[in-house]
Amino acid sequence: MDIQGDQEARLIIAAGEASPDLYFRTRFLTPDPYTYLEIRSEKIMLVNDLEIDRARKESTADRVLPARDWEKKLSASGKSPSSVNIVSAFLEERKIRNILVPFDFPLGYADGLRKNGFDVTANIGPFFPERAFKSPEEAKMIRTVQIGVEEALGEVVRILKESTIRDGFIHYGGKVLTSEAVKSILKKEMIGKSLLGEHTIVAGGEQACDPHMEGEGPLPAHLPIVFDIFPHHESTRYFSDMTRTLFKGPVKKVHRDLYEAVLEAQKKAISLARPEIESRELHQAVVDTFETLGYQTGEKNGRMEGFFHGTGHGVGLEIHEAPRVGKTGELLKPGHVITVEPGLYYPGIGGVRIEDMLFITGTGFENLTTFPKDWGTVAIP
Amino acid sequence: MDIQGDQEARLIIAAGEASPDLYFRTRFLTPDPYTYLEIRSEKIMLVNDLEIDRARKESTADRVLPARDWEKKLSASGKSPSSVNIVSAFLEERKIRNILVPFDFPLGYADGLRKNGFDVTANIGPFFPERAFKSPEEAKMIRTVQIGVEEALGEVVRILKESTIRDGFIHYGGKVLTSEAVKSILKKEMIGKSLLGEHTIVAGGEQACDPHMEGEGPLPAHLPIVFDIFPHHESTRYFSDMTRTLFKGPVKKVHRDLYEAVLEAQKKAISLARPEIESRELHQAVVDTFETLGYQTGEKNGRMEGFFHGTGHGVGLEIHEAPRVGKTGELLKPGHVITVEPGLYYPGIGGVRIEDMLFITGTGFENLTTFPKDWGTVAIP
Repeated sequence: MDIQGDQEARLIIAAGEASPDLYFRTRFLTPDPYTYLEIRSEKIMLVNDLEIDRARKESTADRVLPARDWEKKLSASGKSPSSVNIVSAFLEERKIRNILVPFDFPLGYADGLRKNGFDVTANIGPFFPERAFKSPEEAKMIRTVQIGVEEALGEVVRILKESTIRDGFIHYGGKVLTSEAVKSILKKEMIGKSLLGEHTIVAGGEQACDPHMEGEGPLPAHLPIVFDIFPHHESTRYFSDMTRTLFKGPVKKVHRDLYEAVLEAQKKAISLARPEIESRELHQAVVDTFETLGYQTGEKNGRMEGFFHGTGHGVGLEIHEAPRVGKTGELLKPGHVITVEPGLYYPGIGGVRIEDMLFITGTGFENLTTFPKDWGTVAIP
Repeated sequence: MDIQGDQEARLIIAAGEASPDLYFRTRFLTPDPYTYLEIRSEKIMLVNDLEIDRARKESTADRVLPARDWEKKLSASGKSPSSVNIVSAFLEERKIRNILVPFDFPLGYADGLRKNGFDVTANIGPFFPERAFKSPEEAKMIRTVQIGVEEALGEVVRILKESTIRDGFIHYGGKVLTSEAVKSILKKEMIGKSLLGEHTIVAGGEQACDPHMEGEGPLPAHLPIVFDIFPHHESTRYFSDMTRTLFKGPVKKVHRDLYEAVLEAQKKAISLARPEIESRELHQAVVDTFETLGYQTGEKNGRMEGFFHGTGHGVGLEIHEAPRVGKTGELLKPGHVITVEPGLYYPGIGGVRIEDMLFITGTGFENLTTFPKDWGTVAIP
């Protein structure tokens, strides 16, 4: 459905901070929902009294109107001043009957609007596809987040260098170093830079075999420890995403081989990154590398092992957004910011994942991740 | 619509951390969406391979099933293995045609399910009304968050005590103290306790006249500074919510009077809190107190002034949830956790808000907020 002419509108009803699409268009953060309409590229916000001053100051909307004006009209005519009725009254004044809404538009509102006689269509795919194509300024905001992440992980590397090994576990400052303690250090370092890092992963040993396990308890020496750090900035709302796998103390060949295999696969995939390539070719390069090196993927004793996730995803106002880098993919284009994050996971051995973030440019890419990943850096004596 | 018998199901498709309803039922946090079904009180999750191990370990669901099983069946029969088709295939096996979904269920999924022949109804009001009634364990989790908030604000009070006043602004450690610096202190203190505080408000002077303004720049002496702190716990996901208004240095009568008026209104409202009272009676007590004391509410020069927001709201897995405490309200019941947060805002003078959080018990309430609010504490010399 094309949005053009006088008769159609795009509509979002959401909290500014819960809807990256809404924030993308208004750059206005709210904890509570408000109404946003786009009519012939005019950006209109209907907000309550509590937000109106700030909305007029901070938002990039063309018009910020008090929802109260329509509330009054509805109450005067004996109708309930609900969000649905306010939007309906507004659209009727504009003689609009057809509305395009995001895929995740609340069904309750949609059914209310349909009952009021509107034709409501859920958009398939991204509501604002232009979100996937970052401007240099947006890439810079993502890089700013990434710099904070790298400084925070640098602090952890410093701690691991000063740590000792006792009974197979890492010790620091006279006591065993836990996932929780390291995550707390990372989060404190990040919050000082206005970075909010939820679900930071610091998972060693068996825990690292489950790619989404956040990790807990004492951190093992000699085994891979996965650090997956993906905060967003409180003000700009942009995310970054990096994974590194670190080791403390002497490492067995099986673990170094695992690491080098993942690194090789990642480098092969990255070397392909450029505009006009299908992103699934990057994924295929990872799959092929692992196959060539003899690392098998499949279910064993009811658990998946090997490489069983996608190679990457877009990053921006959401941690996972377009484009995909997996079995199914998309043509990479200038402005895309994608992760390349192959991993290998074998229960009984351990898990390794390495993730960089690339900004696709007109001619190739800029790697937004500068934290080292060579064996000399990640294997900490 | 009642959910009973074999033929009906409740359905949520959402990320664990984006849907408090889903988390309430499964206690399973994910950044990505998964499918949840409730059929005759059997709690069923359909998850991808990446989450299945952790889901089986951590969730409270009765059955955790691999979405892949239905993906395979769909692919084998030439159908797209989309989320909608996976749910459809599952429901067809169970011979279910009627589905109740949350009000904010994504329209795109709902239209897909309807196209597949299902009868999808958006629930009006809370999807799990029992969420509003906190167990003593949940109240304790909220109180744990609140303790962290009080310790963090205690640190700020300590700093304000050690601060000096120069040119009408607060100075600490040889330089002017800003909103940003104080928010950074609060956030670091909180993150150390696994509390994530977004949108913390530290707003002084004119900024405090807009109840949602987060505040920026140098903090004024002699004028009210509003601290509104409402983090959630990373693991338990429960919020707490407290507001205090603090002053540094000698204060004019007009400001002390403003503070005492808000405190009087708040105490009157709190004194009414008990089970079986209409929550709007608490709001009315605030309105009446301000009217009696001569504090008027209305629009002036295009801006609202006086008391122009609700008196409070429920707190739990969301910062704003049932019940409301405002012009329209609900009967308070044991287990409700509500805020009582009257405020007065006059451009040219300043803004004051005071907020406590009450746990309604069988006979009255427990105030979960213990941070002092007497003039002797909030007026820091």
